[in-house]
Amino acid sequence: MAALSVLENLGIRVLHAGARRLLAAAGAFVDEATEMVKFDRGMVEQALSTAPPVIEMRGRGVDRSVAIGGRSLAFMPVSGPPNVTDSVRGRRPGSLSDFRELVSLAQSFDVIHALGPSVEAQDIPLNLRHLETMQAQLSLSDKVPFIFCRGRSQIADSFTMLRIALGVDAVQFKEGVYTYTVINTNSPRQLDIPMAEGIIEFAEAGQLSVITPFTLAGAMAPVTLPGALTLAHAEAMAGITLSQIVRPGAPVAYGSFTSNVDMKSGSPAFGTPEHVKAALGAGQLARRIGLPWRSSNATASNAPDEQAVYETAMAMWGSVMGGCNVLMHAAGWLEGGLSASYEKFILDIEMLQMMAETLQPVEVSVDEIGLDAIADVSPGGHFFATRHTMERYRTAFYAPLVSDGQNFGAWQESGAHTARERASDIWRKTLNRFTPPPLEQSITEELAAFVMRRREEGGAYPP
Amino acid sequence: MAALSVLENLGIRVLHAGARRLLAAAGAFVDEATEMVKFDRGMVEQALSTAPPVIEMRGRGVDRSVAIGGRSLAFMPVSGPPNVTDSVRGRRPGSLSDFRELVSLAQSFDVIHALGPSVEAQDIPLNLRHLETMQAQLSLSDKVPFIFCRGRSQIADSFTMLRIALGVDAVQFKEGVYTYTVINTNSPRQLDIPMAEGIIEFAEAGQLSVITPFTLAGAMAPVTLPGALTLAHAEAMAGITLSQIVRPGAPVAYGSFTSNVDMKSGSPAFGTPEHVKAALGAGQLARRIGLPWRSSNATASNAPDEQAVYETAMAMWGSVMGGCNVLMHAAGWLEGGLSASYEKFILDIEMLQMMAETLQPVEVSVDEIGLDAIADVSPGGHFFATRHTMERYRTAFYAPLVSDGQNFGAWQESGAHTARERASDIWRKTLNRFTPPPLEQSITEELAAFVMRRREEGGAYPP
Repeated sequence: MAALSVLENLGIRVLHAGARRLLAAAGAFVDEATEMVKFDRGMVEQALSTAPPVIEMRGRGVDRSVAIGGRSLAFMPVSGPPNVTDSVRGRRPGSLSDFRELVSLAQSFDVIHALGPSVEAQDIPLNLRHLETMQAQLSLSDKVPFIFCRGRSQIADSFTMLRIALGVDAVQFKEGVYTYTVINTNSPRQLDIPMAEGIIEFAEAGQLSVITPFTLAGAMAPVTLPGALTLAHAEAMAGITLSQIVRPGAPVAYGSFTSNVDMKSGSPAFGTPEHVKAALGAGQLARRIGLPWRSSNATASNAPDEQAVYETAMAMWGSVMGGCNVLMHAAGWLEGGLSASYEKFILDIEMLQMMAETLQPVEVSVDEIGLDAIADVSPGGHFFATRHTMERYRTAFYAPLVSDGQNFGAWQESGAHTARERASDIWRKTLNRFTPPPLEQSITEELAAFVMRRREEGGAYPP
Repeated sequence: MAALSVLENLGIRVLHAGARRLLAAAGAFVDEATEMVKFDRGMVEQALSTAPPVIEMRGRGVDRSVAIGGRSLAFMPVSGPPNVTDSVRGRRPGSLSDFRELVSLAQSFDVIHALGPSVEAQDIPLNLRHLETMQAQLSLSDKVPFIFCRGRSQIADSFTMLRIALGVDAVQFKEGVYTYTVINTNSPRQLDIPMAEGIIEFAEAGQLSVITPFTLAGAMAPVTLPGALTLAHAEAMAGITLSQIVRPGAPVAYGSFTSNVDMKSGSPAFGTPEHVKAALGAGQLARRIGLPWRSSNATASNAPDEQAVYETAMAMWGSVMGGCNVLMHAAGWLEGGLSASYEKFILDIEMLQMMAETLQPVEVSVDEIGLDAIADVSPGGHFFATRHTMERYRTAFYAPLVSDGQNFGAWQESGAHTARERASDIWRKTLNRFTPPPLEQSITEELAAFVMRRREEGGAYPP
């Protein structure tokens, strides 16, 4: 395969000295002067053979565990934009308060299966941000939390807090998967220090790394889809190999984020035909190496408008048709990832719920076909009040969250609100009635004490 | 199959006496008192065996022919709403002027493969409407026109006008397929007079009937999908059988329009999970009987907003994944079909173009993989100016019609227009620069003379 030849002949630049040492010890050819690492084909194949095909992430709450891989599909919310926007307060730099609200929204809808790092809490200093955001995730939600890889100390702090919340010790922690991170390579062909360190720390702790080259065709990757996918595949396999060298069997997912640049503006484009095709191709590559596949629900639109919706629909269908196991940024992503949008979050929840319902199998039986019901209604009549309908109508169809099914007159009389306006109403109501899931008082106190201690110690700066 | 048992044991009420005579002569059991027709299984199977699997519709213009069936997918525009709406002139009853504008828009985008009866020209009396709308279709477009089945005389007038435009005589006309109609059964289990007459007239003239039961689960059909599909399948097969009795080999397509009612309002719902599943099921049924399959790009939204887009995206993907050959209402449908929307038309064109581009195969070759290009860019560099990119970038990606790829700052400076606002701008510009395709002066005059003569004769009233 072309990607193996990229790893073997061209190599990947690995900026982290420890990672280079591990790779060299496992048989890679390392040039310390250029930091280039060339991966032997057999070493990559060996690594792929130890990576588990399905991973069970355990949530703190009841029914909050998530299967990653196989025939499962998990939706994760928007992760990491610097800004946040909504129709009430406008567009602004992300804050801890926004982070907390977005975690609360993610907790409120069952179609979101785990947390993501919603938005950057820019009002919290970098050395303390991980403490505050981890505390927010653990106190406002009982779903699997997300941890950023911003240096060993931040990761260690975050793991400790998670263990406190779960009530498990360090040994137990390593035996289950309780959290996940995303590793982005610096495409093309480069793995930086925090990312390499993240792969190592997560593999050692037995926690899930989603290794995701961000390869925009025509920018950080070749302009052709086969070229962009080849590069992405090589980079992902390099990260996966490192994880398996650290700990064979470490949970790892194959991430893809291949789209194209907008040729007019040079900006990243998402939800495009090229994005869909890249997703279909990446899904095939993930299945070829037998790993869970992560994709993304993205749009480049600057408003939660019609463009945002049709691009997201394309990204979502491309992902689902590609056999996606983990859909990141499933709800709330806007502006090519530069803002998290509250209205978009709710519109996406509706779309995700519709997709989830669409994927439910149709029962076909004598009773469901209902020849008797058909016989009961005379030609030109209607089925509204038949027994067959009355027995089923309450649960027969998906009940929409945002969609308005009124006719035009009734819709106009009720204010002629667009879907975006209704979405605004829904997030506000959801936050107003939000109650965090129960957490033992002693755990709450232990978490607070840990945060206070680490704050006094100066927190932890990213590398 | 359950649908055959519906035809055999329950039967269909056929209101048209001539159709009942034809069916009886072909072996159906007809009860004249109740107008019920029971279809023998063998008779239905015989009819299905003579219906052609692929139909070539011939357009007047160069490259305007459309294959219906097989691996082809044709997009037809919005067809038949009583009202029309746009952001400049508001919502209003449809007029001939609106009809002409919508035909001009359909002519302007190549992704629309044939015409539809866009909107009801309510300012034209019913006895003259077919003359005016046919004249509009033939003078403003060289794509295949649509003809409504509103009585034998209207159909005859329309065929005559089409023959004038094409320059073919009555014998030649019967040997090619130059137009199409949609036959809606009166679900459940009823075929009315204009529809039966339409099947007969179109089959005799060798023109395409798209036979489409409109079966909303929980209203005109059982509340379950298997039930609704069974009923729809029975009704479609009844219509197809009639067409093949009239003329074995007559071009006919299997139409489906199965969705659900909104259980809160009782109104029709579209683009729902149930609509998608029904489309996937209907596509299977069409392939089972070996006929071209028609589906619909529908939404119940009252505005061309986010709901309109996500419902349409669901309907579109359900249709495409179901193997759709003809997508009706592909552009411009709103309010569950009660309005044609100009902005929605343009948003749909963008979505259709994206889908068409997505369905183009990806070329995989040594050159497209571009290992040399990957080798040319050092780790952490970029591909913007490489030879591989420069050779391809102009045509590498789909060029959007509506989507704005600018970053947030640039977008805001350029007016922060939403996709709907940009769509409004696009239809106005498209109409402003519209030029009808050439039509010989003598044909234009002959058409005008025909319309004038028929107008003086009183036109033709629907039955």
